[in-house]
Amino acid sequence: MIVRDKPSAWQLLFVMRGSIIPTIAPRLVVVTSLSIAVVVLEDRGMLQLHDIAALPFSLIGIALSIFAGFRNSACYDRWWEGRKVFGQLLVDARSLARQQLSYIGPDDPAAARRGAWRAVAFSHLLRHHMRAEPPGADALAALAEGGATEVAAARNPPNMLLAAIGRDAAARAAAGGIAPQMLQTLEERLVSLSGVLAAAERIRGMPVPYTYTLMLHRTAYLFCLLLPFGLAGAAGPWTPLIVLIVSYTFFGLDALGDELENPFGTGQNALPLSAMTRGIEIDIREMLGDPVLPEPLRPVDFLLT
Amino acid sequence: MIVRDKPSAWQLLFVMRGSIIPTIAPRLVVVTSLSIAVVVLEDRGMLQLHDIAALPFSLIGIALSIFAGFRNSACYDRWWEGRKVFGQLLVDARSLARQQLSYIGPDDPAAARRGAWRAVAFSHLLRHHMRAEPPGADALAALAEGGATEVAAARNPPNMLLAAIGRDAAARAAAGGIAPQMLQTLEERLVSLSGVLAAAERIRGMPVPYTYTLMLHRTAYLFCLLLPFGLAGAAGPWTPLIVLIVSYTFFGLDALGDELENPFGTGQNALPLSAMTRGIEIDIREMLGDPVLPEPLRPVDFLLT
Amino acid sequence: MIVRDKPSAWQLLFVMRGSIIPTIAPRLVVVTSLSIAVVVLEDRGMLQLHDIAALPFSLIGIALSIFAGFRNSACYDRWWEGRKVFGQLLVDARSLARQQLSYIGPDDPAAARRGAWRAVAFSHLLRHHMRAEPPGADALAALAEGGATEVAAARNPPNMLLAAIGRDAAARAAAGGIAPQMLQTLEERLVSLSGVLAAAERIRGMPVPYTYTLMLHRTAYLFCLLLPFGLAGAAGPWTPLIVLIVSYTFFGLDALGDELENPFGTGQNALPLSAMTRGIEIDIREMLGDPVLPEPLRPVDFLLT
Amino acid sequence: MIVRDKPSAWQLLFVMRGSIIPTIAPRLVVVTSLSIAVVVLEDRGMLQLHDIAALPFSLIGIALSIFAGFRNSACYDRWWEGRKVFGQLLVDARSLARQQLSYIGPDDPAAARRGAWRAVAFSHLLRHHMRAEPPGADALAALAEGGATEVAAARNPPNMLLAAIGRDAAARAAAGGIAPQMLQTLEERLVSLSGVLAAAERIRGMPVPYTYTLMLHRTAYLFCLLLPFGLAGAAGPWTPLIVLIVSYTFFGLDALGDELENPFGTGQNALPLSAMTRGIEIDIREMLGDPVLPEPLRPVDFLLT
Amino acid sequence: MIVRDKPSAWQLLFVMRGSIIPTIAPRLVVVTSLSIAVVVLEDRGMLQLHDIAALPFSLIGIALSIFAGFRNSACYDRWWEGRKVFGQLLVDARSLARQQLSYIGPDDPAAARRGAWRAVAFSHLLRHHMRAEPPGADALAALAEGGATEVAAARNPPNMLLAAIGRDAAARAAAGGIAPQMLQTLEERLVSLSGVLAAAERIRGMPVPYTYTLMLHRTAYLFCLLLPFGLAGAAGPWTPLIVLIVSYTFFGLDALGDELENPFGTGQNALPLSAMTRGIEIDIREMLGDPVLPEPLRPVDFLLT
Repeated sequence: MIVRDKPSAWQLLFVMRGSIIPTIAPRLVVVTSLSIAVVVLEDRGMLQLHDIAALPFSLIGIALSIFAGFRNSACYDRWWEGRKVFGQLLVDARSLARQQLSYIGPDDPAAARRGAWRAVAFSHLLRHHMRAEPPGADALAALAEGGATEVAAARNPPNMLLAAIGRDAAARAAAGGIAPQMLQTLEERLVSLSGVLAAAERIRGMPVPYTYTLMLHRTAYLFCLLLPFGLAGAAGPWTPLIVLIVSYTFFGLDALGDELENPFGTGQNALPLSAMTRGIEIDIREMLGDPVLPEPLRPVDFLLT
Repeated sequence: MIVRDKPSAWQLLFVMRGSIIPTIAPRLVVVTSLSIAVVVLEDRGMLQLHDIAALPFSLIGIALSIFAGFRNSACYDRWWEGRKVFGQLLVDARSLARQQLSYIGPDDPAAARRGAWRAVAFSHLLRHHMRAEPPGADALAALAEGGATEVAAARNPPNMLLAAIGRDAAARAAAGGIAPQMLQTLEERLVSLSGVLAAAERIRGMPVPYTYTLMLHRTAYLFCLLLPFGLAGAAGPWTPLIVLIVSYTFFGLDALGDELENPFGTGQNALPLSAMTRGIEIDIREMLGDPVLPEPLRPVDFLLT
Repeated sequence: MIVRDKPSAWQLLFVMRGSIIPTIAPRLVVVTSLSIAVVVLEDRGMLQLHDIAALPFSLIGIALSIFAGFRNSACYDRWWEGRKVFGQLLVDARSLARQQLSYIGPDDPAAARRGAWRAVAFSHLLRHHMRAEPPGADALAALAEGGATEVAAARNPPNMLLAAIGRDAAARAAAGGIAPQMLQTLEERLVSLSGVLAAAERIRGMPVPYTYTLMLHRTAYLFCLLLPFGLAGAAGPWTPLIVLIVSYTFFGLDALGDELENPFGTGQNALPLSAMTRGIEIDIREMLGDPVLPEPLRPVDFLLT
Repeated sequence: MIVRDKPSAWQLLFVMRGSIIPTIAPRLVVVTSLSIAVVVLEDRGMLQLHDIAALPFSLIGIALSIFAGFRNSACYDRWWEGRKVFGQLLVDARSLARQQLSYIGPDDPAAARRGAWRAVAFSHLLRHHMRAEPPGADALAALAEGGATEVAAARNPPNMLLAAIGRDAAARAAAGGIAPQMLQTLEERLVSLSGVLAAAERIRGMPVPYTYTLMLHRTAYLFCLLLPFGLAGAAGPWTPLIVLIVSYTFFGLDALGDELENPFGTGQNALPLSAMTRGIEIDIREMLGDPVLPEPLRPVDFLLT
Repeated sequence: MIVRDKPSAWQLLFVMRGSIIPTIAPRLVVVTSLSIAVVVLEDRGMLQLHDIAALPFSLIGIALSIFAGFRNSACYDRWWEGRKVFGQLLVDARSLARQQLSYIGPDDPAAARRGAWRAVAFSHLLRHHMRAEPPGADALAALAEGGATEVAAARNPPNMLLAAIGRDAAARAAAGGIAPQMLQTLEERLVSLSGVLAAAERIRGMPVPYTYTLMLHRTAYLFCLLLPFGLAGAAGPWTPLIVLIVSYTFFGLDALGDELENPFGTGQNALPLSAMTRGIEIDIREMLGDPVLPEPLRPVDFLLT
């Protein structure tokens, strides 16, 4: 995620960090060069452009707008849902830790502490699972504190960690350590964390239908490549500038959709999962009374991962 | 579902696998041929086209955009909801298996194992139910492991399986094998699975109102068939190309809506139910500690079913 | 609900069953006739049309599109919500029956059977309540099986049936027949069925604000009646055809909204409540082990009610 | 809420009751008069209109459409949410009454009856609270039946009534009159009613941001006042009619948004809270077995409040 | 939040308080001045404007509309969600206080009173947390009444307060002071408050992707700066007025989005958190029977914070 203050209006025009322009620059160069060529050739009489009326371009423009707007919404919704899923993780991890401390803490502080660390471990494991990484140092440390290191080797570590948490809670309840109502309460958090895991897997595993992406790309390219031929007669030397602006908006929206479609990456528009899971760790360690807390992650070159 | 990396911008223009073009090619050929005929006939003076202003076409174009955009959203929402329903299946199946292992496992490991396999069986049965297939080998194997083979012959197998799971859980609770609170907790998953079943049946059984589909098809055809007559005067030899692009977008959006409307099929934009239910089986068998897990399904010719 | 396979592209153009055309035919005849009159009169010099630019029509067209699109979404959302409400009925009725069979069945099979039939009765009563009919033969039969025939005479039969179910469950719990946790679990279904009832009553009782409907009708009429005067100069003999298509889309969308606004009727775009509640009866009777199940309802002349 | 049958198409054009026209008539008169003045002055050569191209008006028209469509959706969503909130009130009031009758009724019929009347009282108090009225005769009568008359004098009567219901239920549970699970079940309804109260307070207390309303009003006025100058050259004597229709749609949408923004008033597009709460009273009194039920409210001059 | 009555139509045109104009005035001055310069220079023949057709501007206008409309919806949704989050706070704080008074009040009135004040304290702490302020006088007073002053020094005070509430409730349940079912019920509110906290942190911490904001700003500037060149030929002396109105709408929508994006500030379109949390304090103190209640906050110069 790009984190930067809103620059002044005029500065904003020249910002590159966080802009979509680097991604679409090659395409912009191609269509702008084509526009210049068309204008020059027509000006020298080497190209006879039948004067095309505005109608077809506005028709395709409308159709393209439907596509682009629709896919853009669908991609943004995925990003937004990803954001909500990790917000729910925050709720569940904090609450699971709090419940363990409240219910188990008075009788067995070490077990409660392990339970709280498992909530931290789940958060880190989920992040690694989403980024297709093996469990990292923070996850392994949390698993060690939580007494569940064997989970790190599983095929689906967060799911296996939930199974371990549930098993231990049920055993404690069976032994009379907590009331069955408290087991129910803990179980609700586990089901909710299972929902977090499944939703995150779903977002990562199933993109917007490929056919949409393909159709939008194609229409955008066709439109921008034809535009110079349609405009050169009417707009003359203004053609390249206009084509540049129009392509900037359509290609830009298209490329931004690609970036938002998978919100769990590490790109400039991905969700800052590392910072979020670090934040969960800090909150839970504060609840544990740890005297020294880790620092929150800060953006590097405006980028928070 | 089509699974393929985003090809480069230029490659993308020539990809056929995953494109809607094969579906709408006949329609495109018809309107393009008509356009060519109109241009040639007009050029030779055999057709006198009253010069139609742009207004009617932009009016119909706007109306058509409303329709197309609306139906497209409605169809995508169905696909998206189907996706969410199977995501909920993942949550419930995993959680049901986990709960059985936690609550029943310590006392009666065989029964817990049967319970976990029933969660697998439900997933496969739901997939077959959605695809109007009889229970397949994977479902029958899971039912056999779960000790509920009689369910396979039912009219509505997933619903009867839920009844069997609930009956056994209640009997165990009545016999004092689990606390009534744990029966409540299991019951919540059964109600949620019942919701998964009903939502999937609803999506499959009730398409977007037929009248919408009909109205959209008609307007799209009329528009694309009239377009050459409206454009030929102004756009001359460019007419067929423009008609082709415009029809591509409108027919494409229309056909894509048809594909997304029923997300439980096996087409290129259907949800990969086989892969998803296989994934549930893998997750639950890992929880059971099975030494050998089945392989996840892989796309064949970019198609994951 | 119209149930028919997607006909081929060309057939689709001539389908009448399920089309909105019969509803709006009178309006289409009026505006098309007017168009013809305008063209003829102008052609004969009996009408001097000041040449109106395209601007006003595209302005009104855009405004009309906003209205039409908005009201259409609102009406479709009602239909969709109605569909979801009856989907929830399916979940709750099946689950209530299942729970009664699981919790009460082992001790008192006759009572459990009555309880399951009451879930069937609620479904039929809700359908009749929505269609403002007195309880029909299927509802009365189910009430008789469920031992609650007195409910049929109530002012609000489904609500009174819920009260009866709740009273009997509480009495059984008070007598120690089921654990209080099971009463909680049954109660959740009753609250959910109460939500189903209230949502259905809300959809039926409160249409889209009348002012919207009125404003949309008016704008659509004004627009379609003025259109021939605006087009005749530019489009000449094409005018009636264009006016026909444009009015088809705007009047069609308007009329379709009217049909979707009340999804509980028996028209061609209403929800098939009879088939849905029959389906619930079949599912529950299969759970009861009835040897002979009623047939699902089939569409008659493509119409499923 | 306006309640009237859909009149025939032609009648609809002349209906005034339920129309937005009375509200916006002054504005329509102003812009139409201005249009006439502009046309007359230009016709007599007293006004030289530079011929403005269509572009600026379609640009402003598009921008205005964005605004108007957006604010309209936001206002309609508020109305719709208000409708849902009172639907939830129906669920909770009926269920609370049913639960009191089931759980408390067998032991203490008088207390159960008081509890049911309190659900009625809450509904009426909420209506008065939303309309900034002191508790009315129906609320006071229900409070008297419910034995909670002291609540009527509170600053926030519905909230204080919830506190009273909760206190009495807890006292009964503490005395062993109901199982703690039943107290949980009652508590769920109280929390839900608290949500109903908070949602209704939120909708009433926080309108769409003022800045939106202001910006939309301004743009609509500017647009409609400039339109005659832009159209007079091209549309001549048709100008006033066109300006009238365009202003009708834009001003109408704007004024309708104002009406829907606060759904708890008593205007023609407000929700019929009096009828809805009367309906709740009827349903609950039928559950109590009252021999004589009050009549449902009927629309007066098509208006149901 | 701006709180003012809807002024009359004509007054509305001159209102400044609550308008977006002060924010965008510099930009409006720039583009209007540019327009005047272009018109003057062209009029004097010092600038030769190739006559640009309307097409490019309507194309960019459409694309810009997509952007602006989309980002605007996304920002409004954030504001709306913020509003809902604080509405949920109202439900949970009131219910938590009510439950403490009902369950704990009869046995230990002082503890119940402390519990109710903690619900007040959470509300104030959340407000300060959202506005990045240290806990203020109202929060400290409430914490003192609630016996949890140590929380004020925490890194995340609302989260630590939840932990304290949960710990004390669990201890009371362990000591037999409340039934485990009541602890479950209290726990539900704590989890919900944890959700309120996480949702508020999420809204504050994660803006709309920066790339959107940047792209929209850029397109809006480019469009408004180019517009005079495109219009001057066709609209002549009307150009500056038209450019002013068009820029007003596009810049205004853009700036309003900025204001709504962070709903927890103190600007004119921020949510009135101070007034809302004061309202919660009043409601809960009324439930406590406090003889003197604080005054609700009133708007100052139409601004409620």
